Amino acid sequence: MRLLFLGDIIGRSGREAIIRNLADWREKLSLDLVVANGENASHGYGLSPDIAKNLHSAGVDVITLGNHAWDRRDMLGYINQAPHIVRPANYPVGTPGQGTHIVEISRGRRALVINVMGRIFMDPLDDPFRVVSEILSKHRLGVTVHAILIDVHAEATSEKMGFGAYFDGRASVVVGTHTHVPTADHRILPAGTAYQTDAGMCGDYDSVIGMGKPAALHKLVRKTPGDRPQPAEGEATVCGLMVETDDATGLARKVAPLRIGGHLAPNWPDF
Amino acid sequence: MRLLFLGDIIGRSGREAIIRNLADWREKLSLDLVVANGENASHGYGLSPDIAKNLHSAGVDVITLGNHAWDRRDMLGYINQAPHIVRPANYPVGTPGQGTHIVEISRGRRALVINVMGRIFMDPLDDPFRVVSEILSKHRLGVTVHAILIDVHAEATSEKMGFGAYFDGRASVVVGTHTHVPTADHRILPAGTAYQTDAGMCGDYDSVIGMGKPAALHKLVRKTPGDRPQPAEGEATVCGLMVETDDATGLARKVAPLRIGGHLAPNWPDF
Amino acid sequence: MRLLFLGDIIGRSGREAIIRNLADWREKLSLDLVVANGENASHGYGLSPDIAKNLHSAGVDVITLGNHAWDRRDMLGYINQAPHIVRPANYPVGTPGQGTHIVEISRGRRALVINVMGRIFMDPLDDPFRVVSEILSKHRLGVTVHAILIDVHAEATSEKMGFGAYFDGRASVVVGTHTHVPTADHRILPAGTAYQTDAGMCGDYDSVIGMGKPAALHKLVRKTPGDRPQPAEGEATVCGLMVETDDATGLARKVAPLRIGGHLAPNWPDF
Amino acid sequence: MRLLFLGDIIGRSGREAIIRNLADWREKLSLDLVVANGENASHGYGLSPDIAKNLHSAGVDVITLGNHAWDRRDMLGYINQAPHIVRPANYPVGTPGQGTHIVEISRGRRALVINVMGRIFMDPLDDPFRVVSEILSKHRLGVTVHAILIDVHAEATSEKMGFGAYFDGRASVVVGTHTHVPTADHRILPAGTAYQTDAGMCGDYDSVIGMGKPAALHKLVRKTPGDRPQPAEGEATVCGLMVETDDATGLARKVAPLRIGGHLAPNWPDF
Ligand SMILES: [Fe+2]
Ligand SMILES: [Fe+2]
Ligand SMILES: [Fe+2]
Ligand SMILES: [Fe+2]
Ligand SMILES: [Fe+2]
Ligand SMILES: [Fe+2]
Ligand SMILES: [Fe+2]
Ligand SMILES: [Fe+2]
Repeated sequence: MRLLFLGDIIGRSGREAIIRNLADWREKLSLDLVVANGENASHGYGLSPDIAKNLHSAGVDVITLGNHAWDRRDMLGYINQAPHIVRPANYPVGTPGQGTHIVEISRGRRALVINVMGRIFMDPLDDPFRVVSEILSKHRLGVTVHAILIDVHAEATSEKMGFGAYFDGRASVVVGTHTHVPTADHRILPAGTAYQTDAGMCGDYDSVIGMGKPAALHKLVRKTPGDRPQPAEGEATVCGLMVETDDATGLARKVAPLRIGGHLAPNWPDF
Repeated sequence: MRLLFLGDIIGRSGREAIIRNLADWREKLSLDLVVANGENASHGYGLSPDIAKNLHSAGVDVITLGNHAWDRRDMLGYINQAPHIVRPANYPVGTPGQGTHIVEISRGRRALVINVMGRIFMDPLDDPFRVVSEILSKHRLGVTVHAILIDVHAEATSEKMGFGAYFDGRASVVVGTHTHVPTADHRILPAGTAYQTDAGMCGDYDSVIGMGKPAALHKLVRKTPGDRPQPAEGEATVCGLMVETDDATGLARKVAPLRIGGHLAPNWPDF
Repeated sequence: MRLLFLGDIIGRSGREAIIRNLADWREKLSLDLVVANGENASHGYGLSPDIAKNLHSAGVDVITLGNHAWDRRDMLGYINQAPHIVRPANYPVGTPGQGTHIVEISRGRRALVINVMGRIFMDPLDDPFRVVSEILSKHRLGVTVHAILIDVHAEATSEKMGFGAYFDGRASVVVGTHTHVPTADHRILPAGTAYQTDAGMCGDYDSVIGMGKPAALHKLVRKTPGDRPQPAEGEATVCGLMVETDDATGLARKVAPLRIGGHLAPNWPDF
Repeated sequence: MRLLFLGDIIGRSGREAIIRNLADWREKLSLDLVVANGENASHGYGLSPDIAKNLHSAGVDVITLGNHAWDRRDMLGYINQAPHIVRPANYPVGTPGQGTHIVEISRGRRALVINVMGRIFMDPLDDPFRVVSEILSKHRLGVTVHAILIDVHAEATSEKMGFGAYFDGRASVVVGTHTHVPTADHRILPAGTAYQTDAGMCGDYDSVIGMGKPAALHKLVRKTPGDRPQPAEGEATVCGLMVETDDATGLARKVAPLRIGGHLAPNWPDF
């Protein structure tokens, strides 16, 4: 199976770069599944139902979220009607939406997508290690589902690398989001899980993690409130991770970053 | 001028990969200056005088530090005798050592190295924006010094990208350390400063940020104290950033990551 | 039922003040149950088996813990043999010890003691609201147990006041620990639960939260490592909260702080 | 000199209790100076110019602030016209307003009021120990000013007790704010400074640190956004600290908490 995961989409710049190109990339890369983190898709703050629909139409099969999941309050009501939008699984019991979604792929194959949030330097949700262990205990990789992708939305590299190490061999892909900067550590872990600490954002990198520089710097340097940061509007770099898995085992065979457009060094997966 | 910056050196694995190869790399890459972050060089915790000497002999001109600067208490006494060891400049007045060092390069050129620590999710030191502004106000890039490299040791990507944006055009290189994962966002910022959010560690990536997996996972998952994490002992990936600057302006002309050995995708600067 | 809760015992000064006086106080105050937080009883860091035995012999029926629970590693092995030592209930499943203990009081009465840790500004354990709700769902206050005391070991006043409000009417006492400073907000909440945001420490207040001033100030002001802080050795103020409950309802009838000795204004419960 | 410091005023309930009573208390207690923390006076979020004027008219000589200083943006413009409104002194250079104010008292006496913010678990401002040391170096207690009151707006009890210990003998009063809960540790420190870790709020304690319980609990328990917390509207407890100083030395002679109204045990200073 061939999967593409795209990191946090930041406002219009990020959305349009994806909407413009994804159909073409799906074909060129023979993709079976596209997952994207949409927590900043609506002007940097949350995900609106309309934007979710547009991304879905453009070829994003599953949208994951994070600490900005509910910045758009309408998502609290909408998410239960949109099972392909997945919020962190470790919100308390009773939170709207689900933390997992199973996608039916061609030829009877099924892929499980999980979204979970880290706790270090973040609002403390339930234990992500326990919650994901419980989810995985209900599935057999390569048997009940043919691929498992986990978007671990977290700040600390220790928590993300620890998450990869802990679930190595039990998921096809563990990929981080939230820091808005792609890491150069994509690899297949010893037991077969594709891993990258952060997918990076789909947004304008001539910015401070996607937001316009003056307002972001005001906050960092002046410490008094200034204008609310708005997404930078320059050309986005679409950043993601492509993985090819073995349907029989569900483990990764190949992994490569995708980086296209904007200000970062480009990389096109060559498999 | 051609500079190589190497990220946090983690214990024996990281040290030996550098000591074994650096003379060769200095020649092949025609390097004028090598700077490395040594805060984890002594078994993961701090920097001992002996290890500092070994790294210096191997061709590391300047060693920067971070929040682990003083894990080896003898560094508090030694640092004043070793001006090429630079601790974060924003420690309180009266802290042993200096936050800057000027290296004399061939043909009368001089390079200024600055180490500074971020404050978001870290122990609050003095304002890094103010402290570095004050340091830079005493120098003219391309005139009094021909290159300025800043190692910003910080957790949050927002603070590091903000730091790059704020000092863009006033330094040759702004490069991050501390997260132990290399980022894939190396580039030259609009006003001419080479930038990468994190250089990554020089250590074994089959680990949790350089430390052995069982002890690190115990801490993350079990929350009770376990064995003290020790550096992983597999082959290190040496991770760094190479920059070529213009001596007349002090700004960056070329930038590329260096990644060699171990478990990450290799990259050799091709200039 | 008449209960006395004593806040974090800090080293020798705090222990001795309790051991010297508790038998007398038990009698004068007609106490049915004494609970004390012992996370700093062993020289400020953790609780040793021997010190636990001494406190128990002196009349402390139940000892609660907190983030320092395991500073003394031998507690990891000992706690399972000592059911009257209670560690935070929201450690992950599989942690040694228990988060609750039921004490048999005279005339067939039973008191349930719960220890739980907050998460704001602390290492993220499981959700304290959920964990305590689950514990309480197995008991009926005034029927299966005649009193329920919860020691909520937490940093943020918002989390502690929120905890009191959330469990008001479902426990006899919600009392905070961890900040080492007694609060002056003891009261009976609208639905009948006695509450105080922090019981304060049993230790020498001529200190920085119980530790000697020079080492503590070095850490705050100098930011370089200095001597390991040691408990201050002056006379302790024993700080706690006394509550009288109604055995039929399990709710609080009277509440008053106890503060004796040392540098704080004294208060002796007058009921 | 006789000073009264009142803790964080929370919305209408807190304001009205002060406005209704302060003239009477000034007389009964023979107060020379009244200082109050106003960072939550405007509906819980910041301080508006109009409310500042009302408090001033009611007898509050100086208003201090904290992390909510700028919730009302108009304060950024107004504060420079209102020198008796003091914001934390350790904001970066260039921040509107001042961190100190000197009040002329009867018979040629002068009192210096300082506001400063802690950094532990808070947005990192400049070093409060250094900033206040610099301010104090320009004054001689008992000579150039007859009293010095420092409102240290901070979260951690360690930082506040450390602050008291560090400036003991150099100020008349060090009193904490920000946690909205009064502490019971008022005392005169060994070198003569009156101290209390937190003055507590002037607001309705049947709440979560002054805000209505349902919205505050939603945030703590549910983790999804709910209604914006609003100040609780029940009767306020006015909480503060009264100090009598010696004009010749500037040091404290007597100290007592003031707590009146609402749900807390009352205390009226008896000197
Ligand atoms: Fe994001
Ligand atoms: Fe995020
Ligand atoms: Fe490091
Ligand atoms: Fe570090
Ligand atoms: Fe404690
Ligand atoms: Fe504690
Ligand atoms: Fe505050
Ligand atoms: Fe406040």
